[in-house]
Amino acid sequence: MKKFVNDPKNFVPEMLRGLALANPDTLAYVPAYNLIMRKDAPSQNKVSIIQGSGSGHEPAHVMAVGRGMLDGSCPGDVFAAPPVDYIYEATKLLATDKGVLYIVNNYTGDRLAFDMAKELAEAEGIRVATVMVDDDVAVKDSLYTIGRRGVAGNFFVIKALGAAAERGDDLDSLVALGQRVNSVTRTMGIALSSCTPPSKGVPLFDMADGEMEVGIGIHGEPGRSREAVRTASEIVSMLVEAVASDLPFASGDRVGVMINGLGGTPVSELYLLYGLAHDELEKRGITVGRNYIGEYCTSLEMAGASLTLIKLDDEIETLLAAPAEVPIRVF
Amino acid sequence: MKKFVNDPKNFVPEMLRGLALANPDTLAYVPAYNLIMRKDAPSQNKVSIIQGSGSGHEPAHVMAVGRGMLDGSCPGDVFAAPPVDYIYEATKLLATDKGVLYIVNNYTGDRLAFDMAKELAEAEGIRVATVMVDDDVAVKDSLYTIGRRGVAGNFFVIKALGAAAERGDDLDSLVALGQRVNSVTRTMGIALSSCTPPSKGVPLFDMADGEMEVGIGIHGEPGRSREAVRTASEIVSMLVEAVASDLPFASGDRVGVMINGLGGTPVSELYLLYGLAHDELEKRGITVGRNYIGEYCTSLEMAGASLTLIKLDDEIETLLAAPAEVPIRVF
Repeated sequence: MKKFVNDPKNFVPEMLRGLALANPDTLAYVPAYNLIMRKDAPSQNKVSIIQGSGSGHEPAHVMAVGRGMLDGSCPGDVFAAPPVDYIYEATKLLATDKGVLYIVNNYTGDRLAFDMAKELAEAEGIRVATVMVDDDVAVKDSLYTIGRRGVAGNFFVIKALGAAAERGDDLDSLVALGQRVNSVTRTMGIALSSCTPPSKGVPLFDMADGEMEVGIGIHGEPGRSREAVRTASEIVSMLVEAVASDLPFASGDRVGVMINGLGGTPVSELYLLYGLAHDELEKRGITVGRNYIGEYCTSLEMAGASLTLIKLDDEIETLLAAPAEVPIRVF
Repeated sequence: MKKFVNDPKNFVPEMLRGLALANPDTLAYVPAYNLIMRKDAPSQNKVSIIQGSGSGHEPAHVMAVGRGMLDGSCPGDVFAAPPVDYIYEATKLLATDKGVLYIVNNYTGDRLAFDMAKELAEAEGIRVATVMVDDDVAVKDSLYTIGRRGVAGNFFVIKALGAAAERGDDLDSLVALGQRVNSVTRTMGIALSSCTPPSKGVPLFDMADGEMEVGIGIHGEPGRSREAVRTASEIVSMLVEAVASDLPFASGDRVGVMINGLGGTPVSELYLLYGLAHDELEKRGITVGRNYIGEYCTSLEMAGASLTLIKLDDEIETLLAAPAEVPIRVF
């Protein structure tokens, strides 16, 4: 196992503690609930936004906590939904008069946990609403999901809702906006390797050198097909076709493009993919308005990448361009 | 080979093209010299700063081009020094009345290439000076180096010099400052896996599962020892001891800490390492003033990480905190 880890049972808490120590002015860490929250939250003038999900997808979602993004994130263990009480306690800590919004990637375990926490919180008089994210076009119904999976495109939902919450939008407006952003966002990924959860100690699934999984899930769930690795150009063409034909994105559209690394693929390859995606979109008459290249939603150290397209309009573009402060700093 | 690549010979140009397409307002790409440069450079009011080195270390250095950082970067092929004419032509394109500063990581091939380019440029009346970076404490004299190697700590040299050039410092002052920053910066890395250069197609060296290379070089050069992998805490303790005893850093010091991923290690593990490093430094009475956690100087998809410490003083801290605009955006 090629990992920096102490006792695998402490992998998540030790990571969260490091994250909080690195951001002492902006983030608070509540170990009892794996909760990373804004130090200045809750603010009574705004809806608080929480996203949970399993760990192992960092920077999603604990490193997306900050002004203009999430107010808190309470992940479960690696690839495991957060326990109900983590979400319930996080909700109480972050509750405001304007309410609490959950952003939930569409996995059955996550949905169940967030639904139960919502009921518990509402019983205490807290207003709660949920926005589901299901941007992955690869497959319908999967290992842990009924319907489509939520993957890297959720960063666009987080960013747009975070900015809208900051300007004071109410809970109902945020739900409508979140659904609208999700409805114009599509993703598909390709894996070149498996990954190893720390407490499992062996790869989650087998993948021979020279193979790729087309439409991989971010927990290693099967996608559309297992194939021989193709050239980068062929892969990008396949991803753009799958994503752009789904919405459908059409000539004249203006889009945001995300090339998301799955954890083990270096940034050099992500930029190479971006250049090819840019060409492929141009051929279709689609203009790139904004680009996002790097790691957003990973699967531990999996080699691979996903392509996300979001159809831009004036409101969405303004929200995506609004200032945000997240822990990940470059220089 | 678990890589997104077309013809391996085009790996670097295709990556650079993607980088330029992703930053159309700020970066220009000159394919003939693998040159990524600021679109608004050269500015006659400032010294231009160039760093070359081999590719395969991204974001170093092409993704460190931008306001307050480098004016240009002209990398060679993967793990190969840039050809002399790339540097020479980049120097002519970026020359200003105040001169051109080379930042060179200490590898024999890079030194030779930059020295020869400097002579050629000086013959044309361009003022050129060089700052060498040799922050790696692991070994003295190595596979491609006489003396110590330059690794991730060079980002502190780039950042400080970039900020100082922006405020108008002259060439001599920048050289003195660069030497001073390098003199208070120390790094050591540990690899958990090998890496595969695209045109080689097979791993650069063998590393069994469960082994680690202590003091690895960023081109896979041997370090101090090959050992069985230890716990993250033991690894951090080993790195902090190696780095902090070298300068030496002492109780009462205020430092910047960088946990740099070598390409295949996910950011979750880097934050876990940061938390442990923070504890280890606190035990020694050393205060962390600034932290940098992520990928800065990688070795393709190598699993591993390095720890860098820089001793802070008022001037260095001010320069590190100055605004900078680099291609890598989070949100």
